Amino acid sequence: MTTLIRSTGPEPEPPSVEPVGVAVVGLGYWGPNLVRNLVELPAAELLAVCDLNPGALAKIAKKYPAVHVTSSFDELLANPAIEALVIATPVSTHHPLAAAALAAGKHVFVEKPLAGSYVEAKDVIDMAESLGLVLMPGHTFLYSPPVNLSLDLINRRELGDIFFITMSRVNLGLHQSDVSVVWDLAPHDFSILRYWLGEVPVRASALTRSCIVPGTPDVAFIDLEFASGTIAHVELSWLAPSKLRRTAIVGSEKMLVYDDTSSEPVRIFNSGADLSAPGTFGEYNLTYRTGDIVSPHLEASEPLSLELADFCNSIRTGSEPRSSNRIGLDVVAMAEAVDRSIAENGQPVEVESNRLAEVS
Amino acid sequence: MTTLIRSTGPEPEPPSVEPVGVAVVGLGYWGPNLVRNLVELPAAELLAVCDLNPGALAKIAKKYPAVHVTSSFDELLANPAIEALVIATPVSTHHPLAAAALAAGKHVFVEKPLAGSYVEAKDVIDMAESLGLVLMPGHTFLYSPPVNLSLDLINRRELGDIFFITMSRVNLGLHQSDVSVVWDLAPHDFSILRYWLGEVPVRASALTRSCIVPGTPDVAFIDLEFASGTIAHVELSWLAPSKLRRTAIVGSEKMLVYDDTSSEPVRIFNSGADLSAPGTFGEYNLTYRTGDIVSPHLEASEPLSLELADFCNSIRTGSEPRSSNRIGLDVVAMAEAVDRSIAENGQPVEVESNRLAEVS
Amino acid sequence: MTTLIRSTGPEPEPPSVEPVGVAVVGLGYWGPNLVRNLVELPAAELLAVCDLNPGALAKIAKKYPAVHVTSSFDELLANPAIEALVIATPVSTHHPLAAAALAAGKHVFVEKPLAGSYVEAKDVIDMAESLGLVLMPGHTFLYSPPVNLSLDLINRRELGDIFFITMSRVNLGLHQSDVSVVWDLAPHDFSILRYWLGEVPVRASALTRSCIVPGTPDVAFIDLEFASGTIAHVELSWLAPSKLRRTAIVGSEKMLVYDDTSSEPVRIFNSGADLSAPGTFGEYNLTYRTGDIVSPHLEASEPLSLELADFCNSIRTGSEPRSSNRIGLDVVAMAEAVDRSIAENGQPVEVESNRLAEVS
Amino acid sequence: MTTLIRSTGPEPEPPSVEPVGVAVVGLGYWGPNLVRNLVELPAAELLAVCDLNPGALAKIAKKYPAVHVTSSFDELLANPAIEALVIATPVSTHHPLAAAALAAGKHVFVEKPLAGSYVEAKDVIDMAESLGLVLMPGHTFLYSPPVNLSLDLINRRELGDIFFITMSRVNLGLHQSDVSVVWDLAPHDFSILRYWLGEVPVRASALTRSCIVPGTPDVAFIDLEFASGTIAHVELSWLAPSKLRRTAIVGSEKMLVYDDTSSEPVRIFNSGADLSAPGTFGEYNLTYRTGDIVSPHLEASEPLSLELADFCNSIRTGSEPRSSNRIGLDVVAMAEAVDRSIAENGQPVEVESNRLAEVS
Repeated sequence: MTTLIRSTGPEPEPPSVEPVGVAVVGLGYWGPNLVRNLVELPAAELLAVCDLNPGALAKIAKKYPAVHVTSSFDELLANPAIEALVIATPVSTHHPLAAAALAAGKHVFVEKPLAGSYVEAKDVIDMAESLGLVLMPGHTFLYSPPVNLSLDLINRRELGDIFFITMSRVNLGLHQSDVSVVWDLAPHDFSILRYWLGEVPVRASALTRSCIVPGTPDVAFIDLEFASGTIAHVELSWLAPSKLRRTAIVGSEKMLVYDDTSSEPVRIFNSGADLSAPGTFGEYNLTYRTGDIVSPHLEASEPLSLELADFCNSIRTGSEPRSSNRIGLDVVAMAEAVDRSIAENGQPVEVESNRLAEVS
Repeated sequence: MTTLIRSTGPEPEPPSVEPVGVAVVGLGYWGPNLVRNLVELPAAELLAVCDLNPGALAKIAKKYPAVHVTSSFDELLANPAIEALVIATPVSTHHPLAAAALAAGKHVFVEKPLAGSYVEAKDVIDMAESLGLVLMPGHTFLYSPPVNLSLDLINRRELGDIFFITMSRVNLGLHQSDVSVVWDLAPHDFSILRYWLGEVPVRASALTRSCIVPGTPDVAFIDLEFASGTIAHVELSWLAPSKLRRTAIVGSEKMLVYDDTSSEPVRIFNSGADLSAPGTFGEYNLTYRTGDIVSPHLEASEPLSLELADFCNSIRTGSEPRSSNRIGLDVVAMAEAVDRSIAENGQPVEVESNRLAEVS
Repeated sequence: MTTLIRSTGPEPEPPSVEPVGVAVVGLGYWGPNLVRNLVELPAAELLAVCDLNPGALAKIAKKYPAVHVTSSFDELLANPAIEALVIATPVSTHHPLAAAALAAGKHVFVEKPLAGSYVEAKDVIDMAESLGLVLMPGHTFLYSPPVNLSLDLINRRELGDIFFITMSRVNLGLHQSDVSVVWDLAPHDFSILRYWLGEVPVRASALTRSCIVPGTPDVAFIDLEFASGTIAHVELSWLAPSKLRRTAIVGSEKMLVYDDTSSEPVRIFNSGADLSAPGTFGEYNLTYRTGDIVSPHLEASEPLSLELADFCNSIRTGSEPRSSNRIGLDVVAMAEAVDRSIAENGQPVEVESNRLAEVS
Repeated sequence: MTTLIRSTGPEPEPPSVEPVGVAVVGLGYWGPNLVRNLVELPAAELLAVCDLNPGALAKIAKKYPAVHVTSSFDELLANPAIEALVIATPVSTHHPLAAAALAAGKHVFVEKPLAGSYVEAKDVIDMAESLGLVLMPGHTFLYSPPVNLSLDLINRRELGDIFFITMSRVNLGLHQSDVSVVWDLAPHDFSILRYWLGEVPVRASALTRSCIVPGTPDVAFIDLEFASGTIAHVELSWLAPSKLRRTAIVGSEKMLVYDDTSSEPVRIFNSGADLSAPGTFGEYNLTYRTGDIVSPHLEASEPLSLELADFCNSIRTGSEPRSSNRIGLDVVAMAEAVDRSIAENGQPVEVESNRLAEVS
């Protein structure tokens, strides 16, 4: 290769504002990704990381000598230079850690889901609002280029009326020790659906099975009904040896297939069925439009980096982050409804409605 | 190319027994395929075809001058040379036509589904049994090499316990004027599930939507629960501009993905998750096996031809065809259960059990 | 399915002119396809088939009782009702059979290649012209929708200047007993190149190997240079267990990838490199356009049927068929050049030029 | 996600020996990858980086405060703590920089190709040997799991005799300002071929075109003949808007397809053609074996990291690195032969033989 090729993209802008002093809590599977992105983010300054695992701390210390490592959460709260906490710990700890951080006057970013229950989520949201602090759930997919391209096509009505959406998120996943596959994976798809459709489903039902760990569903089939008429199916599992990802949005005008594991993550099928007036004998006449398939060009970008930049920007400007706590609350409401349906042997149940959801 | 290459497969065997005199009723979308296969089938002799559409009859007449064409169904019944009828008409006509044919002493092959209701299906089955005639539903997929390879792997327990099965059958289909997408497409997947698992689901639930023709569901999400613990999801639609076919069988040992539109219709993923004894704090320890992916070689063969040969063989030998009327009845029972769940707003409902189903 | 769906495409037009009386010579690998298409072609009437293999004749007789079968070529020549012969025999017999047929006043369709040498091809072309008869080589790909869509894009300069073309035609083929892989497979790619570019290469070189049958090359790498500057590589083999088909046309504006084994046979990549003025130190500045990928919709149609219709139309109207004998001659000239290069150990050699080629 | 999942792979071993003090020269397209890997490599300690571009230096300084940045090459040579230099500069500078580094007693890793000519490569190799220093070319693909799996299958004769190999390496590449596409891309494929076959081709020929920058070939078709009888074709281009990667090894027993851009980088096709004794009329009888397709499981690993570890290990233990300078010299000899063939209008030319090559 050659040094004559100099410009590998624009130089990182010097941050227009003071970088946000940040600490990361939890260095498990996801934490190190947050650390890496925060180190490279001009809008943030990673001051410390916290975990109970000495090995995890040691790794960060070797790689980033400038970052302070500690096993004491209170130490972070006591440090005035730390303006914000980025929490990537087990779901059951989201509420206590977030609440403590808010109480200490810190802005808080919490990995999805925002909390382990609707009540817990509502509680930390109310705290953040009354304290005037940013509370942001980590719904990373809201920053993914294919998800946003799809949103744009939906909003411009390129797909027409949204007939139905099917989503598969199936792979050989890490079993979560404290949550079901629903609370682990569904927040991804629920946040995307909420983002795309701008509405919360009115009813949800689910069929699940606990194949490996008794009492911990590891496969789930979820049906959702929206007031707009759109119906959606979400299929989740930790058990599939091979990743199967496929989201299909079928509209009256076009179909869109989204697969973030593909080299062409978004494909648009310009075909459809048109219904003409009923013929004799009440027979309907359908004509089929067939057309091209287009894979739109997408700029490469790391959603996690955009997400964390949005978090920092909200802290500095007071704007609401795209991954808002209103969306975070709706996602928790949807997951809770799924649990209720499971408890009622798959009966469709209402989804906790809330005034926040009405505002899209 | 060259005439020196002589052997394009073995010469067709001269049939060991008298060919079965057959007539085809219904020359719509599927009928011409039945005609083509019967013409080339040594075990059958296509004597006549029947349809109300002169254009459809004319096409057959031009292509196969030897075949008698008529618009009179009674004429077929009156013809003693015609031993068997192959019926490919709208679902609502299956029972009356099959019943009339049986009453006239004809063996009957009926395109799937066997009938439009459980009662109708049971009625013609009883007729056939009391009259000692063959009544066979056209569940073609039971003769497809990939479906049978999959059955073999399931039976040899290569996949281990069957955790769950998901099936997508989505395309820009022909709207049936007299049935929903459930009665049109589900019989394919229901017959395959019944064939693979050897059991009828105990409960079914469904969410559907009628996007194009009011009152005629054209998209359906169906959940099925089996006594063995296996759960299945079947996703059906006529509205997708592009074919999306994918059946995934996830077992404790391996995963199998079947897609009859692919050049590698069966792919086996030799991976999985193993659960070891719970660790401290009741934490489960999972280890993941990763392995090769294998696409088994499959002999090319036309399932429809094998299916019709099985029909003729049953007539001559009295053996039960692979696509038995017991399976046909179970498939109708499953479709009816889906309709009941739809009527009850998606509540899970029992599937009509029947002693026939017990015998696998 | 249902008989209510009547229109499976428009009824075949009654031919506006008298059908051409045709006989097929050679029922090897390809012959039966010609027979099937001629039987269904309104513009033709298949009167007879000829082969030395009684089994091959018997198959046709059973399927098409109306067609006369014979092992005597002379019988065909003597039959005045037979206006045209369709020859699908080994390459070495193309010239003698075609010459005899022309001498007997028959129009002739010859499977590709037109003949086994440039001299032989020229000879039958001259005969046909002096006798005012149609002589047409069977370059079926010239009637394939993806090939014609590609031609259209080239002619409309959508791809810009054609930088280079690479073609792979590799599979587990039938070894031809009388020709090399070059004469068996290259005519497909050579006819497509000639059709797309409208020019004959000025130079050709090749590297081959005879892996299975000594003296019969079964793998070939062929390089071609065109006066326009375009270069092409054609890779051929009978030995690859799996079909590898890929033709890539790389132009200054776009790239087109054609694979007739794919469900999306043509894909257009709207990207490219733009060269701006040299920078300091004679360094060139390139900017890269990235864009969408489009898979154009293609009508399904059987090229062989279109090709035979073109043959019949030429006989009745005197128009030159798309697969002209000028193209047939150029293809033979290219194959002969490849053989010369092989004989000279891979040295590039001139391709036999001819005035016919100049006319595109 | 969760901190309960602790083990993300084994902890990095504490290096058993003293880490090698290293400096990276050249921070263009490739340099930063070398830097990132060296920082994380226990066996190495990255002491300094050198480039003329202040912006490139600044980026490294921000990310790795501990690493010294300089624009002075001599400063590196003068620093006794620096035992080895990793050179990623334009090809034309490989020889002078490597020679200077060796003269200063430094071990040297040079990005491929080892040098810009056979004479230059031979010269630095002789220097290194006489000085007892490690000189290693950066043929990264020799450390890629799929390439090594393929080598293993070849060596175990799983594929049988290697009939032919075709390689496509086509994408929208960065134009090198100082070399052709041959010197930029071919070293990848040439090093893989040399590694797989353990032999240097006896003859090479090439057809190229300079489409964008006059005099700088940006597309190349290369043919290679090996003494073993194997023939190979390598297709290279910077101009294709979309990556086309495909290497096919066709053997007498099996075919292997390698594509490092695929989620299944190696696929093995268990099919082939068997030749039985010639039949009557000297007609050969071929039978075709058809079989399964297998995608072997491959461990994920970063070849660059393995390669740099091999470099450090060679310095400490004196063992020859897998990417030996003998392979580096052969690769340069092949590239030079290609240039000679181009100069002689595509005539096949001998490849510079050398005693080093004989030893595989």
